[in-house]
Amino acid sequence: MYFSASQIALMIGGKVDGDPNATVNSFGKIEEAGAGQLSFLANPKYEEYLYITKASIIIVKESLELKHPVASTLIRVGDPYTAFATLLQKYQEFMQQQLKGIQQPCYIAQSAKYGENVYIGAFAYLGENVKVGNNTKIYPGVYLGDNVTVGDNSVIFPGVKILHNCVIGNNVTIHAGTIIGSDGFGFAPQADGSFSKVPQIGNVVIEDDVEIGANCTIDRATIGSTIIRKGVKMDNLIQIAHNVEIGGSTVVAAQAGISGSTKVGKGVMIGGQAGIVGHLHIGDGAKINAQSGVSKSIEPGKAVTGSPAHDYAAALRSQALSRNLPDIERRIKQLEQLVQQLVKTTS
Amino acid sequence: MYFSASQIALMIGGKVDGDPNATVNSFGKIEEAGAGQLSFLANPKYEEYLYITKASIIIVKESLELKHPVASTLIRVGDPYTAFATLLQKYQEFMQQQLKGIQQPCYIAQSAKYGENVYIGAFAYLGENVKVGNNTKIYPGVYLGDNVTVGDNSVIFPGVKILHNCVIGNNVTIHAGTIIGSDGFGFAPQADGSFSKVPQIGNVVIEDDVEIGANCTIDRATIGSTIIRKGVKMDNLIQIAHNVEIGGSTVVAAQAGISGSTKVGKGVMIGGQAGIVGHLHIGDGAKINAQSGVSKSIEPGKAVTGSPAHDYAAALRSQALSRNLPDIERRIKQLEQLVQQLVKTTS
Amino acid sequence: MYFSASQIALMIGGKVDGDPNATVNSFGKIEEAGAGQLSFLANPKYEEYLYITKASIIIVKESLELKHPVASTLIRVGDPYTAFATLLQKYQEFMQQQLKGIQQPCYIAQSAKYGENVYIGAFAYLGENVKVGNNTKIYPGVYLGDNVTVGDNSVIFPGVKILHNCVIGNNVTIHAGTIIGSDGFGFAPQADGSFSKVPQIGNVVIEDDVEIGANCTIDRATIGSTIIRKGVKMDNLIQIAHNVEIGGSTVVAAQAGISGSTKVGKGVMIGGQAGIVGHLHIGDGAKINAQSGVSKSIEPGKAVTGSPAHDYAAALRSQALSRNLPDIERRIKQLEQLVQQLVKTTS
Repeated sequence: MYFSASQIALMIGGKVDGDPNATVNSFGKIEEAGAGQLSFLANPKYEEYLYITKASIIIVKESLELKHPVASTLIRVGDPYTAFATLLQKYQEFMQQQLKGIQQPCYIAQSAKYGENVYIGAFAYLGENVKVGNNTKIYPGVYLGDNVTVGDNSVIFPGVKILHNCVIGNNVTIHAGTIIGSDGFGFAPQADGSFSKVPQIGNVVIEDDVEIGANCTIDRATIGSTIIRKGVKMDNLIQIAHNVEIGGSTVVAAQAGISGSTKVGKGVMIGGQAGIVGHLHIGDGAKINAQSGVSKSIEPGKAVTGSPAHDYAAALRSQALSRNLPDIERRIKQLEQLVQQLVKTTS
Repeated sequence: MYFSASQIALMIGGKVDGDPNATVNSFGKIEEAGAGQLSFLANPKYEEYLYITKASIIIVKESLELKHPVASTLIRVGDPYTAFATLLQKYQEFMQQQLKGIQQPCYIAQSAKYGENVYIGAFAYLGENVKVGNNTKIYPGVYLGDNVTVGDNSVIFPGVKILHNCVIGNNVTIHAGTIIGSDGFGFAPQADGSFSKVPQIGNVVIEDDVEIGANCTIDRATIGSTIIRKGVKMDNLIQIAHNVEIGGSTVVAAQAGISGSTKVGKGVMIGGQAGIVGHLHIGDGAKINAQSGVSKSIEPGKAVTGSPAHDYAAALRSQALSRNLPDIERRIKQLEQLVQQLVKTTS
Repeated sequence: MYFSASQIALMIGGKVDGDPNATVNSFGKIEEAGAGQLSFLANPKYEEYLYITKASIIIVKESLELKHPVASTLIRVGDPYTAFATLLQKYQEFMQQQLKGIQQPCYIAQSAKYGENVYIGAFAYLGENVKVGNNTKIYPGVYLGDNVTVGDNSVIFPGVKILHNCVIGNNVTIHAGTIIGSDGFGFAPQADGSFSKVPQIGNVVIEDDVEIGANCTIDRATIGSTIIRKGVKMDNLIQIAHNVEIGGSTVVAAQAGISGSTKVGKGVMIGGQAGIVGHLHIGDGAKINAQSGVSKSIEPGKAVTGSPAHDYAAALRSQALSRNLPDIERRIKQLEQLVQQLVKTTS
């Protein structure tokens, strides 16, 4: 799929400076781009590459004055980065729209229903009473258990497993290999040291505009729902235990884990590899640093770090002093010697 | 599938108080339940919800005296929580028993064998000489490599991959996306800085009554077996390296990792995101706190925390003092000043 | 597949001591091996097992003098461990070579191409313009998105998902459940607190001789490539973010995570559960201890530990002192009392 400089200029309201018939079919960074690629120059630090890049088309600032001749065709706009990002977005949307139809073999139960313009890939499985909305893409190897609902305009990438009764909203993206609705980890200790399973019969509810990374696990509630609220963004390999609730627009970095029944507020930032124990409340807008071990509830807006986690600023001070411990010990030794001498002198 | 109040009362030995023909088809928490749901009241703290819930049927204590009129049908029993848990269990068993038969397309090698009452989902793969026991459920997209054995009454959830020669016992549950029998991480460093692979030709043995969470990885032994003993319960995203052995009824929380050849005893508790280095012995009944980094063997019954992990009680004291380091430094400064004055005074 | 003692002796240049027609079809540790198994004795510590093992054939040192009669057939060689490792390798290669042909059902787009001697398992998916090289094994349930390239002699284990445009080299092994080319985690914060997705249109490039463990996630670059260089070895459940580059022959242990745009040098060792923040440079030959939290770039050859990570030797000293904090506090108290007495005495 090739686009010409004049077509692109039209899309982003720019002015062609060079060959209007120059064509591109992919994107590249200005320092790496080759023939047939579109690039952009926003940061003046990279201007040197403008004169040596092999990119066929480059989006630049309207006001740019060339210091040397340029082989590429330029498109001049007010804000090159925004123009480039707009093109990326249009390109992604265009590519997603191409994806349509039902590939064979797939398994669709007789009671399952799907909307218009869907893509259902080969080896996808839609169980009894599954409902898939309009324009939603179900990639190959996805499993939707009985009674699962997926809304409109959602993208479920290859190999995602969504187990029975879970509910996925509109404009949701779930990346490859993620498991939604595995059993919560609930076992009752028995007198003989063994454990008896507590049935997990709730579900997982994922609201609109959520994005979940690859190979995550989100467990179903014991009863009721584990809930991921509107606009939450989660990275890869994250563990969400049963009955957790994550508030709107909260961001969770890779490999973090949240234990059972903890309620996370809105707009919280959770760093990579952080862990939060069960039954806590994390206030709106809290910030949890990477690798923190959160063992107590956090007030709204507070920042914490460390394992166990405490106040961010205080923790940084303690950490710095902790590294100075050899010095602290040296000072104590010196004091001990001085004091001993003093004791001798004065006695 | 609807059940009436009188049917349920019969199952749990209770007495109907209200409409014996009221019906339910699912479960809910008393504070959230809607029409058609069954709930219970065990904790008096929640009694207020009894008078406003929309649950159709509620299991309550025999002796409960109502303070207001109640719209729901009540079933009175000696112990409402146990009665409710019993119903959950019966419901789960009933649902699992419904799951039967071979869905198409699936791939079953000619030499593979399976027992009675099994479920083999679409896109499941049974390699050469695979044996699946009676009443076992193989969900869609499961891969059982050549010579894999799965016992009776086990449940292998969607997308689980069990590689060649691994052995799974009876009453085992493995949640979606888990990998059993990937190669152990063994490489011999070469003179030129590269690494040469050490073939991993052992297997994984999972004994009876084990439950393993979603997206875990359990590597095969170099030679011999990686062994998960009877009754072990593992949460999600856990890494078990080659030649590890985990003793009976040990519990491992999410995102923990155990390195090669470490032997973990019986009844051990391993917290979330904890890590254990290779070739250690973890004694029976030891407790490893979340996010601990265990670098030395642990005596039976001992509790550890921290990274590197040491004695739990001592570590808590050190952690508390560590947070007080700014205060400790202040006290040292004060001492230094005082001592300097004293030195002046006495000299 | 059975091999006789004389056949094995021929393969490893050894001398049969016992029945040359004794046969084996698998390998075992000397302390566990049963009839029909081949074992070896390299470490004299295990010699006692030589006289009681049920292994049919045992590889031993040329010079070994027997203290008791031995039931097994022996094969005498110069270096028993190397001979045994050689046999393992030959056995693995032989087994892989058996794996050939296209199992049905699978999905191969009309524009996809594959070389000679390939294995394509049931439920594998090869999208448009996919290229698979000679002797490469694509196990069941693997997904290769549009335009994916996999080189020669590579092994892609069950359920691996490689998304569109990613490039995999020769002699690469990717273990089950790993995701290559999921979207990078890039979102632009909006004025209303929500996040807008930054399209991720780059890819992942995996060079020759790389081995990647099970259930890992490697995100595609925003633009350009996330790159895993020649000979890198990665364990299970590892997260590699967008635009990361990992240098040749670097080793990454299980559950480690590397954040966006960080460049890791050659021959680096990254411990289990370690985390590295984004946009850092990790010098060649650096060593990062397990569970470290790396927040600053690391010079070539340096070793770090702790969270936040700093110099290994200094950190160990601080950690030891940190555990001695109760003692340090006691000494300060003592000093305070002494000094107070001195102040009284001298005033």
